[in-house]
Amino acid sequence: MNLIDILSKIQAGKLSADKAAEHIDKMYERDLGFARVDIDRHKRCGLPEVIYCPGKTGRQITGIMTAMVKAKQDILATRASAEQYKKVKRAHPKAKYNEPARTITLMPKRPAQIPGTIVIVCAGTSDIPVAEEAAVTAEFMGARVERIYDAGVAGLHRIFKHISTLRKSSALVVVAGMEGALPSVIGGLIDRPIIAVPTSVGYGTNLQGFAPLLAMLNSCVPGITVVNIDNGFSAGVAAVMITRTGVRHQ
Amino acid sequence: MNLIDILSKIQAGKLSADKAAEHIDKMYERDLGFARVDIDRHKRCGLPEVIYCPGKTGRQITGIMTAMVKAKQDILATRASAEQYKKVKRAHPKAKYNEPARTITLMPKRPAQIPGTIVIVCAGTSDIPVAEEAAVTAEFMGARVERIYDAGVAGLHRIFKHISTLRKSSALVVVAGMEGALPSVIGGLIDRPIIAVPTSVGYGTNLQGFAPLLAMLNSCVPGITVVNIDNGFSAGVAAVMITRTGVRHQ
Amino acid sequence: MNLIDILSKIQAGKLSADKAAEHIDKMYERDLGFARVDIDRHKRCGLPEVIYCPGKTGRQITGIMTAMVKAKQDILATRASAEQYKKVKRAHPKAKYNEPARTITLMPKRPAQIPGTIVIVCAGTSDIPVAEEAAVTAEFMGARVERIYDAGVAGLHRIFKHISTLRKSSALVVVAGMEGALPSVIGGLIDRPIIAVPTSVGYGTNLQGFAPLLAMLNSCVPGITVVNIDNGFSAGVAAVMITRTGVRHQ
Amino acid sequence: MNLIDILSKIQAGKLSADKAAEHIDKMYERDLGFARVDIDRHKRCGLPEVIYCPGKTGRQITGIMTAMVKAKQDILATRASAEQYKKVKRAHPKAKYNEPARTITLMPKRPAQIPGTIVIVCAGTSDIPVAEEAAVTAEFMGARVERIYDAGVAGLHRIFKHISTLRKSSALVVVAGMEGALPSVIGGLIDRPIIAVPTSVGYGTNLQGFAPLLAMLNSCVPGITVVNIDNGFSAGVAAVMITRTGVRHQ
Amino acid sequence: MNLIDILSKIQAGKLSADKAAEHIDKMYERDLGFARVDIDRHKRCGLPEVIYCPGKTGRQITGIMTAMVKAKQDILATRASAEQYKKVKRAHPKAKYNEPARTITLMPKRPAQIPGTIVIVCAGTSDIPVAEEAAVTAEFMGARVERIYDAGVAGLHRIFKHISTLRKSSALVVVAGMEGALPSVIGGLIDRPIIAVPTSVGYGTNLQGFAPLLAMLNSCVPGITVVNIDNGFSAGVAAVMITRTGVRHQ
Amino acid sequence: MNLIDILSKIQAGKLSADKAAEHIDKMYERDLGFARVDIDRHKRCGLPEVIYCPGKTGRQITGIMTAMVKAKQDILATRASAEQYKKVKRAHPKAKYNEPARTITLMPKRPAQIPGTIVIVCAGTSDIPVAEEAAVTAEFMGARVERIYDAGVAGLHRIFKHISTLRKSSALVVVAGMEGALPSVIGGLIDRPIIAVPTSVGYGTNLQGFAPLLAMLNSCVPGITVVNIDNGFSAGVAAVMITRTGVRHQ
Amino acid sequence: MNLIDILSKIQAGKLSADKAAEHIDKMYERDLGFARVDIDRHKRCGLPEVIYCPGKTGRQITGIMTAMVKAKQDILATRASAEQYKKVKRAHPKAKYNEPARTITLMPKRPAQIPGTIVIVCAGTSDIPVAEEAAVTAEFMGARVERIYDAGVAGLHRIFKHISTLRKSSALVVVAGMEGALPSVIGGLIDRPIIAVPTSVGYGTNLQGFAPLLAMLNSCVPGITVVNIDNGFSAGVAAVMITRTGVRHQ
Amino acid sequence: MNLIDILSKIQAGKLSADKAAEHIDKMYERDLGFARVDIDRHKRCGLPEVIYCPGKTGRQITGIMTAMVKAKQDILATRASAEQYKKVKRAHPKAKYNEPARTITLMPKRPAQIPGTIVIVCAGTSDIPVAEEAAVTAEFMGARVERIYDAGVAGLHRIFKHISTLRKSSALVVVAGMEGALPSVIGGLIDRPIIAVPTSVGYGTNLQGFAPLLAMLNSCVPGITVVNIDNGFSAGVAAVMITRTGVRHQ
Repeated sequence: MNLIDILSKIQAGKLSADKAAEHIDKMYERDLGFARVDIDRHKRCGLPEVIYCPGKTGRQITGIMTAMVKAKQDILATRASAEQYKKVKRAHPKAKYNEPARTITLMPKRPAQIPGTIVIVCAGTSDIPVAEEAAVTAEFMGARVERIYDAGVAGLHRIFKHISTLRKSSALVVVAGMEGALPSVIGGLIDRPIIAVPTSVGYGTNLQGFAPLLAMLNSCVPGITVVNIDNGFSAGVAAVMITRTGVRHQ
Repeated sequence: MNLIDILSKIQAGKLSADKAAEHIDKMYERDLGFARVDIDRHKRCGLPEVIYCPGKTGRQITGIMTAMVKAKQDILATRASAEQYKKVKRAHPKAKYNEPARTITLMPKRPAQIPGTIVIVCAGTSDIPVAEEAAVTAEFMGARVERIYDAGVAGLHRIFKHISTLRKSSALVVVAGMEGALPSVIGGLIDRPIIAVPTSVGYGTNLQGFAPLLAMLNSCVPGITVVNIDNGFSAGVAAVMITRTGVRHQ
Repeated sequence: MNLIDILSKIQAGKLSADKAAEHIDKMYERDLGFARVDIDRHKRCGLPEVIYCPGKTGRQITGIMTAMVKAKQDILATRASAEQYKKVKRAHPKAKYNEPARTITLMPKRPAQIPGTIVIVCAGTSDIPVAEEAAVTAEFMGARVERIYDAGVAGLHRIFKHISTLRKSSALVVVAGMEGALPSVIGGLIDRPIIAVPTSVGYGTNLQGFAPLLAMLNSCVPGITVVNIDNGFSAGVAAVMITRTGVRHQ
Repeated sequence: MNLIDILSKIQAGKLSADKAAEHIDKMYERDLGFARVDIDRHKRCGLPEVIYCPGKTGRQITGIMTAMVKAKQDILATRASAEQYKKVKRAHPKAKYNEPARTITLMPKRPAQIPGTIVIVCAGTSDIPVAEEAAVTAEFMGARVERIYDAGVAGLHRIFKHISTLRKSSALVVVAGMEGALPSVIGGLIDRPIIAVPTSVGYGTNLQGFAPLLAMLNSCVPGITVVNIDNGFSAGVAAVMITRTGVRHQ
Repeated sequence: MNLIDILSKIQAGKLSADKAAEHIDKMYERDLGFARVDIDRHKRCGLPEVIYCPGKTGRQITGIMTAMVKAKQDILATRASAEQYKKVKRAHPKAKYNEPARTITLMPKRPAQIPGTIVIVCAGTSDIPVAEEAAVTAEFMGARVERIYDAGVAGLHRIFKHISTLRKSSALVVVAGMEGALPSVIGGLIDRPIIAVPTSVGYGTNLQGFAPLLAMLNSCVPGITVVNIDNGFSAGVAAVMITRTGVRHQ
Repeated sequence: MNLIDILSKIQAGKLSADKAAEHIDKMYERDLGFARVDIDRHKRCGLPEVIYCPGKTGRQITGIMTAMVKAKQDILATRASAEQYKKVKRAHPKAKYNEPARTITLMPKRPAQIPGTIVIVCAGTSDIPVAEEAAVTAEFMGARVERIYDAGVAGLHRIFKHISTLRKSSALVVVAGMEGALPSVIGGLIDRPIIAVPTSVGYGTNLQGFAPLLAMLNSCVPGITVVNIDNGFSAGVAAVMITRTGVRHQ
Repeated sequence: MNLIDILSKIQAGKLSADKAAEHIDKMYERDLGFARVDIDRHKRCGLPEVIYCPGKTGRQITGIMTAMVKAKQDILATRASAEQYKKVKRAHPKAKYNEPARTITLMPKRPAQIPGTIVIVCAGTSDIPVAEEAAVTAEFMGARVERIYDAGVAGLHRIFKHISTLRKSSALVVVAGMEGALPSVIGGLIDRPIIAVPTSVGYGTNLQGFAPLLAMLNSCVPGITVVNIDNGFSAGVAAVMITRTGVRHQ
Repeated sequence: MNLIDILSKIQAGKLSADKAAEHIDKMYERDLGFARVDIDRHKRCGLPEVIYCPGKTGRQITGIMTAMVKAKQDILATRASAEQYKKVKRAHPKAKYNEPARTITLMPKRPAQIPGTIVIVCAGTSDIPVAEEAAVTAEFMGARVERIYDAGVAGLHRIFKHISTLRKSSALVVVAGMEGALPSVIGGLIDRPIIAVPTSVGYGTNLQGFAPLLAMLNSCVPGITVVNIDNGFSAGVAAVMITRTGVRHQ
């Protein structure tokens, strides 16, 4: 029973105000003192609450994870350092760390697989952490992912080599720093949904990723959408939501 | 036969260089002197070349339209003024003008309908032109569109009223100016792909749409993607590409 | 006798220039060599001079505190590190440290309580230090404070749960980073003075808090006012001044 | 019966879902085709929906006004041009135009007066339109307003002359362009809530009001809050909300 | 005899201070009251002084041209409106107007031709004025120019078609608005000097050309240089200087 | 004999080119390998070359100082750390360090005193390093300096107390961070040249000093001039140049 | 008797509060309904109140002028259009208009002359209006002005020709747009106070004068001070204040 | 055989698709797991792939170098730290480190020398690393380089001394921070291609190099081109490409 259900029941007079308050208070979140875990989010938004690690102590991350494990939630923690993982591992020895993606995952069983393939393309070695964050997120949510890394506009042949893979994807995540031209070049070749991710990689006027962000927003190819700078996680979620759209159509 | 096909044939030795050049030169584009029409784009990218009207004379728009009609292309012209339409109408009396969306369309027959429904939500009266541009674009590409207008965060009941419509959409376009909070509020309630469109509507620090653009990029709800300020056209294209993804899965 | 009083007396011919100069020089400030303490400020502006700790040595903070204790002033020091507090404690063992708020307080007796309740709402775990700075400041000035933390727009149920608390407040402080939408959502539900505080929490384009700052300034809800990024202290002072306004009306 | 009431009744099982939908749909808003009027807002947020005129035709403004008159709402329209007023006047001959404030008001009877006085201070002749918008808004909501205009920091004697008026206010609105120093200077003299309004008046680097906005946000006087550039309307609403806080305390 | 010559002669004791002053004053410039024409510039910097038309009256432009004709200078006037040209033509009937480039030229005889070919590429119809300004400037200085217009990254086949022309150029001027990706794509294919010119063409976040300017500065292809937004004139001069470098090597 | 003298002599035929080259090469600068010292600058611009320490090793600073001592130059080094000074002191035991100003000075005898007094005002404790850099620079150049520190706009009485000192100055340096209002307030009271120095002190939107910089540039008091953020050195030089102007008038 | 005098007398008990209020109210300002004229400013700040014309009607300007004439004030009005002047001339036939400077002046007799010469240098034809505003302002205040126009860094010989004039000035105003390099080049040659004025002249990235403003603030020559973009008036005032400093030294 | 050759052969039917794929896959790049080396780039773009060191481990740099050595490529690594070099040296003892330029080079034999001379000018000691990066890059590509360092606009004599060297160059690289005026001053004296490089050196408003970048883009001297902030490497490549243009003309 999720929030929308509760709201419906209240409206239908099937649930009293007091009961609803109890539900909202006790069932839907667990209060850890320092943070409340939104256990209902998975049903409401298609994704369990995800732990954003920067600024959190190892003990805090472990605490949230323990609460989620009890609530039988799959766990994804992003931007986790190796040190944070080390502390987490003591309490949750089955938790896995993906170093380039900087993610911790803990899943009792493999997630149900979604049909379709998300293709993740990136331009330079330094874009890989952002691309990997997108990839791990999508896989965590049950999607199949193909990676095409190190395929920048300065070497178009690398892109052409993979054109049939690009054309068969259910959604593309294209990660690029510098001048951010890669999504436009790919968007001119195929007709699939493209999520562009600018990265904060480059010389002075990169402006911590604003240069590729502006380039992507101004793409001459219509239909390209953009997420925040370095936000591989959000790009992964968006790609899965798009892929799921297809699944539900069936 | 599109560019990718030609490239394949060349690679397979089935097409000589001279023939290919002729193809590329004669078949794929029509040179109008002041602009070359990319007639192949529909097949390559799922959308015919669209006419962006600002700065073009009525004669130029009419000329491009005539060339496209000959090539049996459906026609969409964006950001067209009433004056531009008046001139177009003399040569193409069947062309239709959508005043709030500022679009001209000319289609010999109704486009093939795509299953699924795109929902377009906007916050204020002044956001309607951008929302309508998205709607007309999506309909032009064969999608079914539902509009929920004037539903801002300052009156949440307006959003709640439509929650079941939101939940049944194949993709959402959420248009908002001011503080740009609407996509986050909707994104917290449903699990569908959301394309956020910031508009240049508001007081001084709106910064011609940069305030809601930044808000949307920084949304606390993962998976929301963003297009350029006021770019309803690109949002419409993205929504159709996502909806089509589902169609192809079947 | 405060500055305004002196100015009145001078104007009324009840105080000679020489005496006034003495007053201003000797009575109103204490010169510590490295800083002059404005002991009159409490009477003039309703708040004793507050010690802003960054960049000050433990010895300097202790020195200012000793001078203020002698002048029978209540003491509030903001942005104090644990190290600074450790040094302060040796000289002023009764000084208290609030770790999340990063404040040191030293008050001989509880401040006179002001009727009314200030409600402080914040969105994420990382906004808590700013919210706590506002809370401690308001309590230091004699106000009653209620805290509603971790109540973001991505989970509206958390806000709805507290709606009657929000409606009974004398003033609200709403702290939010990311897209800064929380004040607009709350402002659409109640008719109480809202002070919005943007925080420098978020991914790349948060721009150190400029994204939520712009969102709050552009709120579609009229009557929301804003203080500087991360400035919980100023928000707390503003909330107390508003609450006091009511007290004086009586 | 307002939205909050409805929500309470639904929660208490006193209102069925169908009835609620009807209420929300029929009673709370009137759909004019081009805009929906939120007639409930007055009760929910303490202010009737206000008409923002730029970009609206005279016919549209007149239509909204007619709907609101039927719903027995007081009417305030902001940023109205003389031409817009001329058209409005034909249908609503009792509507009044305040030229410097650029407002149209239509109130069957004088609003209930709130105890307390809002003082509005501004620095230069060019700031007067913004100051007047704040003043008219506050008077429209039932507040008493005193105006102190043309009192900049370059002539401090003009401020000192009015110090007792400043000290007796329930809330201050301080409007300033250029370097935006006026709120700080006044804030150093009194202990009342100050709402600072930056204006887009000045030479090149004023940046359309960003220079005084930044100055006000960075004020060395704590407790000063800020609204958007040129937004006299929002400042007026905030000042009334603060003044009302006192009224409710009684 | 140019400035450098004079300086040398003075240093060699071959020219007295008084004579030099006379030279500098009388021979090197003609004072027209409202502007001084630097007749020496052609020899010193390889380009006669060029007339920038915006803000100048037809009479002023005509006056400068008359003075330059007397000094046997070739004339190039940039950013000239059709109205300005009409007035110029009465006094200088041989002056020619290039409408897309917005230039007026007046040359008694064809300039000495420089070996080599400058290729000018542009992406969209709206970039043509900037591209033409570069082309006319280069031709005015004696260079041979080839134009490749309407060749954006969304249709790579258009670029590939011209690859042998690109490879044979002595210098390339690549003009692009939107995301500014064209110079990077071309730069990845050839090894010739590329001068990138960003244009102020595009939707909201184009920022009057700053988006493509930043993209070009951040190009992943080393060796691409950039001139100011819309500055086709400076790009043309740079391309000629590079081409001349080769000529002088011989 | 300085550069201007040499140029005059060359022009008068009193100096051959070869000799001039020697002069310029040998007499006017000393080449230290890593830096060339412009020993002529004192005569040409009224200030010896000053050593900017950040990024230089102790050995480099010492080397430049030794070369200048040999050329009988007074020495001023700015932004020197305590560590840099420690290393300098070994080679130049008479060098003095001013800790708050972060300057090293070495002068064989007291500089010739200029009539007049430069007054340096600053607002907060954190502005003192910048104010001291200005003070030390002015004293190094022979000026008499009076300091008025900790005199912000939030406590106007502190400024009024010193009004006669302000009115007797030959030039004022006013240093302020936060909202940068101090120069305007002082400029409204006196008619002396004011050099405003913004500092990078403050909360988030201070923008590393841009907020007070913009405020100072937009001052409503005409005649206030501004130097770069935190640039006490340049303000000191400007104040001395103004004071010297008076000296030369006599 | 000016404000400072009054304050002194009050402090000395020689003036009662009531009398002072009358003085401040009646003697120091004349209230014109739409603006109060600060007649005391000339004595307090060395400059009569100046009329800034943009946004004022001819009638308003004329009214302020009439009040000032009665108070025997010299009159300077800046940024006046030819239309505004035409209306002013009817009431004040002796008022003079300087077209390039866009100023109106009305002075019963020539101002007392200050010893010393202010030199005003500018780079391009389009900088002349700003330079002339500075020149007229300085002359209005009694200074002698020499103008050196059209002397940019691209033609250094034009600067060298005038070096002895530059060296004899009491203060320099250097006006420049584009890259704003002129003040640095001149500052490297002389030791006089330089006031740099950036202008909003140039191509795209001039950013309405921010490019030369930043260049001037970052000048490698210490002691250069800057006023706001296009603010010739403030530069003129600053130059006179500096020149007067010398006069008072005598 | 490079990419262009392959494309030509495919088009001419001389190469089958399968063979081409093999070529592209096996011959043109070596996959190192963490990065693919584009060995063809030298032929295609006139420069081997260059290793950008920041963020790479010593092992990664060494691995790429080993692969390139095997492919008989000359090696240039930029922005290398001394630590990175130390690790590289163990595997490649012949690799050379240029400390000021922060480059590692490894070339079996001296590159073929290109006729012509590139002159590299810089203004301050802190610009030297950027200038050296340009110099080393140009030398690596076979060009002859002359360095003129420490020649800022504040000491024009230093520039004049070298004027004949400047005039004989095939291309100039002018590196400058602060106000970025040096390229304009030099550009006014000569007629050679100038590549301007802004550096992130300076006080507050340098904006990490944006101040000189804007100045250079706005230069009043036409034909100056600009590369990204601190990007000496790209400037060096551009200078060589220009110089080579001359070589090919012969």
